[in-house]
Amino acid sequence: MIVIMHPHATPDDVEQVKERLRQAGLRPYVAQGDERVVIHGHGNPRALDGQQVETLRGVERVVTVSRPYKLASREFRPEPTVVAAGGVPFGGDAIPIIAGPCSVESEAGLLEIAGFLRRAGGAALRGGAFKPRTSPYSFQGLGQEGLRLLALARQVTGLPVVTEVMAPEQVEQVAAYADVLQIGARNMQNFPLLQAVGRTRKPVLLKRGFMATVEEWLLAAEYILAEGNPHVILCERGIRTFETSTRNTLDLNAVAVAKSLTHLPVIVDPSHGTGHREYVIPLARAAVAVGADGLIVEVHPRPDQALSDGNQSLDFAQFQQLVEEVEAVARALGRRLF
Amino acid sequence: MIVIMHPHATPDDVEQVKERLRQAGLRPYVAQGDERVVIHGHGNPRALDGQQVETLRGVERVVTVSRPYKLASREFRPEPTVVAAGGVPFGGDAIPIIAGPCSVESEAGLLEIAGFLRRAGGAALRGGAFKPRTSPYSFQGLGQEGLRLLALARQVTGLPVVTEVMAPEQVEQVAAYADVLQIGARNMQNFPLLQAVGRTRKPVLLKRGFMATVEEWLLAAEYILAEGNPHVILCERGIRTFETSTRNTLDLNAVAVAKSLTHLPVIVDPSHGTGHREYVIPLARAAVAVGADGLIVEVHPRPDQALSDGNQSLDFAQFQQLVEEVEAVARALGRRLF
Amino acid sequence: MIVIMHPHATPDDVEQVKERLRQAGLRPYVAQGDERVVIHGHGNPRALDGQQVETLRGVERVVTVSRPYKLASREFRPEPTVVAAGGVPFGGDAIPIIAGPCSVESEAGLLEIAGFLRRAGGAALRGGAFKPRTSPYSFQGLGQEGLRLLALARQVTGLPVVTEVMAPEQVEQVAAYADVLQIGARNMQNFPLLQAVGRTRKPVLLKRGFMATVEEWLLAAEYILAEGNPHVILCERGIRTFETSTRNTLDLNAVAVAKSLTHLPVIVDPSHGTGHREYVIPLARAAVAVGADGLIVEVHPRPDQALSDGNQSLDFAQFQQLVEEVEAVARALGRRLF
Amino acid sequence: MIVIMHPHATPDDVEQVKERLRQAGLRPYVAQGDERVVIHGHGNPRALDGQQVETLRGVERVVTVSRPYKLASREFRPEPTVVAAGGVPFGGDAIPIIAGPCSVESEAGLLEIAGFLRRAGGAALRGGAFKPRTSPYSFQGLGQEGLRLLALARQVTGLPVVTEVMAPEQVEQVAAYADVLQIGARNMQNFPLLQAVGRTRKPVLLKRGFMATVEEWLLAAEYILAEGNPHVILCERGIRTFETSTRNTLDLNAVAVAKSLTHLPVIVDPSHGTGHREYVIPLARAAVAVGADGLIVEVHPRPDQALSDGNQSLDFAQFQQLVEEVEAVARALGRRLF
Repeated sequence: MIVIMHPHATPDDVEQVKERLRQAGLRPYVAQGDERVVIHGHGNPRALDGQQVETLRGVERVVTVSRPYKLASREFRPEPTVVAAGGVPFGGDAIPIIAGPCSVESEAGLLEIAGFLRRAGGAALRGGAFKPRTSPYSFQGLGQEGLRLLALARQVTGLPVVTEVMAPEQVEQVAAYADVLQIGARNMQNFPLLQAVGRTRKPVLLKRGFMATVEEWLLAAEYILAEGNPHVILCERGIRTFETSTRNTLDLNAVAVAKSLTHLPVIVDPSHGTGHREYVIPLARAAVAVGADGLIVEVHPRPDQALSDGNQSLDFAQFQQLVEEVEAVARALGRRLF
Repeated sequence: MIVIMHPHATPDDVEQVKERLRQAGLRPYVAQGDERVVIHGHGNPRALDGQQVETLRGVERVVTVSRPYKLASREFRPEPTVVAAGGVPFGGDAIPIIAGPCSVESEAGLLEIAGFLRRAGGAALRGGAFKPRTSPYSFQGLGQEGLRLLALARQVTGLPVVTEVMAPEQVEQVAAYADVLQIGARNMQNFPLLQAVGRTRKPVLLKRGFMATVEEWLLAAEYILAEGNPHVILCERGIRTFETSTRNTLDLNAVAVAKSLTHLPVIVDPSHGTGHREYVIPLARAAVAVGADGLIVEVHPRPDQALSDGNQSLDFAQFQQLVEEVEAVARALGRRLF
Repeated sequence: MIVIMHPHATPDDVEQVKERLRQAGLRPYVAQGDERVVIHGHGNPRALDGQQVETLRGVERVVTVSRPYKLASREFRPEPTVVAAGGVPFGGDAIPIIAGPCSVESEAGLLEIAGFLRRAGGAALRGGAFKPRTSPYSFQGLGQEGLRLLALARQVTGLPVVTEVMAPEQVEQVAAYADVLQIGARNMQNFPLLQAVGRTRKPVLLKRGFMATVEEWLLAAEYILAEGNPHVILCERGIRTFETSTRNTLDLNAVAVAKSLTHLPVIVDPSHGTGHREYVIPLARAAVAVGADGLIVEVHPRPDQALSDGNQSLDFAQFQQLVEEVEAVARALGRRLF
Repeated sequence: MIVIMHPHATPDDVEQVKERLRQAGLRPYVAQGDERVVIHGHGNPRALDGQQVETLRGVERVVTVSRPYKLASREFRPEPTVVAAGGVPFGGDAIPIIAGPCSVESEAGLLEIAGFLRRAGGAALRGGAFKPRTSPYSFQGLGQEGLRLLALARQVTGLPVVTEVMAPEQVEQVAAYADVLQIGARNMQNFPLLQAVGRTRKPVLLKRGFMATVEEWLLAAEYILAEGNPHVILCERGIRTFETSTRNTLDLNAVAVAKSLTHLPVIVDPSHGTGHREYVIPLARAAVAVGADGLIVEVHPRPDQALSDGNQSLDFAQFQQLVEEVEAVARALGRRLF
């Protein structure tokens, strides 16, 4: 920890900072500059919260040198983690594609999609049973019945199932059916929920909040890891910016940054990341090119009849085209589709 | 609903849109322009989700004319709602100030603050028992013990208590102690939580998410209202922008906008809205000047020893100055402090 | 300058950083931590650009301790600067209101507005002769004829004139007519233009860019000051965020921040800051309450016939109401209108 | 144009809107809904600015159906435009890479870089002679001498030269040396400058402002096209968001969007788009994968000695790796490097 003092800080102010560092078990070292004093605190970097020092009299700014997360960091574990989700590995050389409808709508519909995906190169089936919706008047998902249909589709096709869990008390119920528990973007900082999925041993697909920095995203992962569940897959799905021509701004920089900071696999959701069907394929290609460890996309046999997100769902022909094009990109970079 | 077709949409495309509108009980009317066709759907504005039409072939854009919320709107209820929280009215002429520490830390400390606030013009006591923290390694609050201390402070001082609830299964526990249930910014779109507090009849302080539009904020309120709980107080607490010189960007525009769109009271949190003690008082004055119905501020007897948010907490002398200055502004505009 | 090395930086890397600091005339001091080395460079804080050190091998991050601007800083000049603009002081106790149409449209119209403002409490007249417009097909202003009309309005009413200059080669022409040269938000980082107005001795109204940090804004002021022109008035006019219910997000935090960092006067433009007539008055009140040294607002006798920005222009009755209300707020805080 | 009236608008309000539409040569058509009236204006979509109608009494919102730009649109010109820059085609199947130092620093250095690029697969040479810098105390470029050195490097290597022009009065001078005139991100809405380069017939590289929407970017291109210069190359270089782990957020969505809206070529700058050398190559791969028509990257033989932007400059070995990897991606998608 580096404490930068105001130019007009008094010797007493400096003394108070040193004392606070010592209380936390850090060894203070004072560097006297021409304009101001800078104090280093040597020792365990997580011993003291920078905010608690910033508030001391005469302190201008505190610079934290170390990363605030530990278990999620590359320093803690240099080798990439491979998360196996129902037999599908995320984080290895092969790139799995998770696909399916935004919401589970009906048995026939879901089986049609799952059967198609099985043949067309999908590695896992996504589908919402519990749906977070901005308006209380929008379709909220089939709930328990949706979970049952997902399990049925898995039984028929063998595809592992990824579905969202929205509240701590749902975790047990959803975990009984799903292979991967999805935490949606709006819940990335729902800490009781993170802890609840952290207490399971199910793989967790942690979507980046549309308002979250990469550091906050990794701290959210840390919440899960700290509970003892090491099976976390990160998913970039677009952030909120001033731009309105797409629903979100897919942040592929964040994929490269996250891959350099953490050993966890990082996948990309170009459906939410763009919000428009016509941009999903080019951004899926870009996601694989930047180094993503997987994709998750929305697919619907008749997007214009979907109960939610039809606008950004691919139809079957488009999904086939996506598979073909991202496979070409993957191979060009020495990887392949799972 | 207004459906704008692509310049190259076919008559079949137009027919399909009309059919979909009719299915939802809307009466389609086609306006043939020079460049393109525009279709109106007359009837119940919430009968059909715009997204479901936007996905149809040949559709360029759907414009929704009506507001997506109803119970929260001024059209539904033109007169301002006054929410009584433990005897303190929010939304009338008088402006209450909620104040207290970020976290409840100890019995002695809390009683010291509450006693001071009682004398210095505070209308209600805030204090976190359950704390959402970005890092799993930060202080997470005293939990149940914190609730007990808040109730004790109320008993001693008579100040009603505002405290945060973080998960649906905590609602009953927190509601047993608190006068107002606070929903934090990170939970503004935690829909199961909104529904859970909506099923109580306790007043709810709904903080705006730091990446939420005013419309999303009012839709979050609608979730609570739709469950039957009409006692919602909105709270602007700053949004996330590119600017880094303050912790958040306090959006006082949003107060004026919200006051024009909804009958619910709107208060302001200049502590989180700025993140720096020295800016809290000027922004509190501005909040009252723009028309806020209340304030919520962090106060700590010794901010440099606070376990969280010390950086943005006022000390006692500063709180007294705040009360004096916002009172002067309130009186200049024909209002007063509660 | 503080240079934070990677945990795996070599002694050679450290040596190279020390050498670079010495080359720039700084005295390096090495602090050996448990996890990594931190190097201080003592001496003139502007001797070396942090970027040039960050690029050295083994460097993780460079923290610049001092502010990058000097002439604009409170450290350089602790007392507030009062800028006299055609006899109107900005930065003292009295708060001047600049008002007028977005664009100068006609002689009769301009004289009608100026005459009204003179009587109603306006301190200076604003009006665009050269207009920056997003589309090449929008009305671009009357140019030279607009300047002539502004000068005429000043002659008739005595109100000093504020008008925008868009290019270095226009500076001489505009300065021949205007009392204050306005730099628009889109030109805040048009450095040749800043240098050109810096070479005059006319007061400059420097609008904050809608995507500029406070630091960048003060650096833009520094460009003008560094050319020898000390007469700079800063103007907050709203920043671009994700929120769409207002045209911009008026950042009143930035007024408090800027007032603490610089001695220059800071005024506020609630017309552009909100983009909607109905929100201009509440935000003008808030601006004065936060501590602004002036206001600039758009006024038009018949906003619905304005050639530009009618949407955010006040009519005459509204302007009178604004004057009354902000005067009340100013007096409550011990200030007054000019 | 579609005018949505308030629910409480009067018949007189409706009449006034109709009259205004008629004045502008539009034919009004009134659609009476259940809750409110909607008025269509049929005819030339650019006859009337929506803002001028939004200001009329009783109007809630105006929806503009057509795009505000014309010459830049796909509707105007369905086929892709190929811009030839000193013999290098942008917008065809082949993908050119522009590379070079941030600033021109010396004759020997520039010739070393240019010679290397010639051999390593660079298609054009970039280098700043006039540099826009946030601080007046940063290196501002060599100016005229820099232009001379660029011309010399072209003479020696045959690579066409791309360099920035910052003010209208510099256009002639820069155009005498450069093959492509670059408009920097901060100048994207410097309208006099856009008009000045529009009056030349030199190709223009128009960087997207870091605060500009795609629509504003295309309107900036329209300024150049409207002056008669059809040779515009668009360049995405990252936008400003809340994320701080990269210098900007490279918006590859915008490349896909722009390619669908305009016939102009779109290239990508991963150096400014990330701000960190280590992320340049993955984002360059992604840019080509999304469909970019070219790249522009910063290269320096010894980035740690660069006078500006060393942090984001590739060294020679890294540039060679970039060429190899993007070539593989291009070929996978049926394209190739120029």
